[in-house]
Amino acid sequence: MKFSKRAARMKASAIGELLRQAKSNAFISFAGGLPDAALFPGADLATAMAAVFAEKDKSILQYGDFQGVAELRTFIGQKRMGEKFGISVPAEHILITAGSQQGIDVVSRAYLNPGDVVLIESPSYVDALNVFTGYGAVLKEVPADENGMLPEALDQILREEKKVKLIYVIPDFQNPTGKTWSLERRKAFVELIERYDIPVIEDNPYGELHYDKPMLSSLASLNRLRQVLFLGSFSKILSPGIRIGWVCATPEKLHVLSLCKEAIDIHCVNMTQEMIVVYVKDHDLNAHIEYMCSVYKKRRDAMVRAIRQYFPVGTTFAVPGGGFFLWVVLPEGFNATRVLPEVMAQFVVYVPGTAFYPENGAENTMRLNFSNCDEKTIERGIHILGDIINSKICIDNV
Amino acid sequence: MKFSKRAARMKASAIGELLRQAKSNAFISFAGGLPDAALFPGADLATAMAAVFAEKDKSILQYGDFQGVAELRTFIGQKRMGEKFGISVPAEHILITAGSQQGIDVVSRAYLNPGDVVLIESPSYVDALNVFTGYGAVLKEVPADENGMLPEALDQILREEKKVKLIYVIPDFQNPTGKTWSLERRKAFVELIERYDIPVIEDNPYGELHYDKPMLSSLASLNRLRQVLFLGSFSKILSPGIRIGWVCATPEKLHVLSLCKEAIDIHCVNMTQEMIVVYVKDHDLNAHIEYMCSVYKKRRDAMVRAIRQYFPVGTTFAVPGGGFFLWVVLPEGFNATRVLPEVMAQFVVYVPGTAFYPENGAENTMRLNFSNCDEKTIERGIHILGDIINSKICIDNV
Repeated sequence: MKFSKRAARMKASAIGELLRQAKSNAFISFAGGLPDAALFPGADLATAMAAVFAEKDKSILQYGDFQGVAELRTFIGQKRMGEKFGISVPAEHILITAGSQQGIDVVSRAYLNPGDVVLIESPSYVDALNVFTGYGAVLKEVPADENGMLPEALDQILREEKKVKLIYVIPDFQNPTGKTWSLERRKAFVELIERYDIPVIEDNPYGELHYDKPMLSSLASLNRLRQVLFLGSFSKILSPGIRIGWVCATPEKLHVLSLCKEAIDIHCVNMTQEMIVVYVKDHDLNAHIEYMCSVYKKRRDAMVRAIRQYFPVGTTFAVPGGGFFLWVVLPEGFNATRVLPEVMAQFVVYVPGTAFYPENGAENTMRLNFSNCDEKTIERGIHILGDIINSKICIDNV
Repeated sequence: MKFSKRAARMKASAIGELLRQAKSNAFISFAGGLPDAALFPGADLATAMAAVFAEKDKSILQYGDFQGVAELRTFIGQKRMGEKFGISVPAEHILITAGSQQGIDVVSRAYLNPGDVVLIESPSYVDALNVFTGYGAVLKEVPADENGMLPEALDQILREEKKVKLIYVIPDFQNPTGKTWSLERRKAFVELIERYDIPVIEDNPYGELHYDKPMLSSLASLNRLRQVLFLGSFSKILSPGIRIGWVCATPEKLHVLSLCKEAIDIHCVNMTQEMIVVYVKDHDLNAHIEYMCSVYKKRRDAMVRAIRQYFPVGTTFAVPGGGFFLWVVLPEGFNATRVLPEVMAQFVVYVPGTAFYPENGAENTMRLNFSNCDEKTIERGIHILGDIINSKICIDNV
């Protein structure tokens, strides 16, 4: 065995291999987490990029700042963290990363020793869990309900488990469940992490995509003692292909994180950072986000309607207030992993819910993405999926 | 202590902190490893980028391929690996990374478990060594002379040390020494790694920048059994700010590396990859590299002349045949670390050689970069540096 233990574990994902086969356009895909490319402001970004080349072609092509372009960090600190997430910070509190995925990696590198415990929601974003275990961390699930982690349960774990090094949460439109923590639960959570002084990764790529109610206060904004490392991203509000996200934390924390970032890939691409700076000067990013929300809200509604129409009695789900995902719990005994090849044979694809648990999860769950299909396609795909599910449940009942 | 052990170790670099202060334009810097920004083909890249946006604005802004843009991988396999490094490969043998720095990280993640041994040249590229130890590896120096690692010494280590997991080498214009392995030594090295079946990182960001003689065969091209993971980069031949490099290895190895890359940052920026594809179609990259070589060769020669004129008797160095760096050994007793603040007070800066050793290195060494100053500036800076060195050596002798 030449490869590392972490790499060997990665090789084992059979679902991952299956989903890789479903990338062709022939599929109605509810599997990925992609924004709709038709909504990208391509022409505006092209103009912005041309301006960047005209003004500073030499500097964007040279090595850049480990921490990221200062003007972009200022914009993020004021306009995203301040206006959207309730905590206005200067540029020194922002580190630019290659999407929030790299934010997870950088924080893990800065904090985790082998054997450390990372507390997580369960299910959770599986590519984060892989990063934590890749650094030798042990995952421990914190009990939760529809409003978020249970404070009493978390308190007990923090009292008893002395090796907790990080807590990883997605309080807004969680991946995969679409769940959002209540304000009360956020406050109780922050009170606890301040008391125990535990660093927290608040991963928030979806928060600005809200379809029903205003945004709730971020954990970072409630956390006066600044234990929270907030991860944000342009992937869902502007473009994922530019690979630009950020960490918002105290300069003391970011000093160490920046050294880790330097060892990983030195710095993020300069020209995409500068392109955002010019784009947000000349265009109203908030209006663009509102427009996307109006589109995605209709798609969510289409999926909700179709599930109610085509899925069997006994199916349960919560309507997500934003984000990209809807989490479905099917009647007991249904196996979403086993039926997937049959569904893929009819060119529909989703991710079985078990893929999002560190150990074994409920086999009767699935994650459905609604952001990257139009409403008619969603209706058609859910119809096909519902028919197969119904046929299976009938057979199982025979 | 909240941070990880690897992060705590990173914080300890006093030289790094000192050099960070010397980033202003007031300094004559022999410290960095930067190409000259005046040589970047900014206008041509702007035109290429405009074409990319015009043709495929939606797809460059969407999530992309973990392994990288296929056309770019084909170009690298044929035109860089094939024509320059002596081993023509199809696109499946190439993984795009954020510079060769990320190549080091991805390979380390795929191969290293805590306690594994990585064999290295000494001195070596310090940001690679930090990555290895960051994954818990133990570094072991292989004895070498001016022609590269000594085969007998390597053979003995491989016979006795059973935990060797990787070997890391820079056979062309090494950072920091500027040294190039002889062809004979390359063949002997490959014969050994094939016999022991040990994976090797051949880090080659400078190979195409050769000023005197044709390029020698890469280790990858001599290695029929494909143990070598070759790291290449556009940073020195086109632009470092675009953060595009590559790993060339067998598809079996790259399958695992791609999964690691996905966990790190999903994929590299699409638009910079596509920009290179268009640029190399419309322009002669090889001619651009030849032009850069003609400029850098004059700077190397200027530095060699100035050192011979201004540095004290007893100074030794080998003239590097390419790359960015010249390694100077000063008379015994001279301390390049201790004198640095005084040199910086006169606005000249370099990196003391000890910074490039895993443990302690010779205090009378320094790495001098010649790529990012014109010839007059090099002459002036080396004059200032030489005067200070001479004054110290006189005092020491009193």
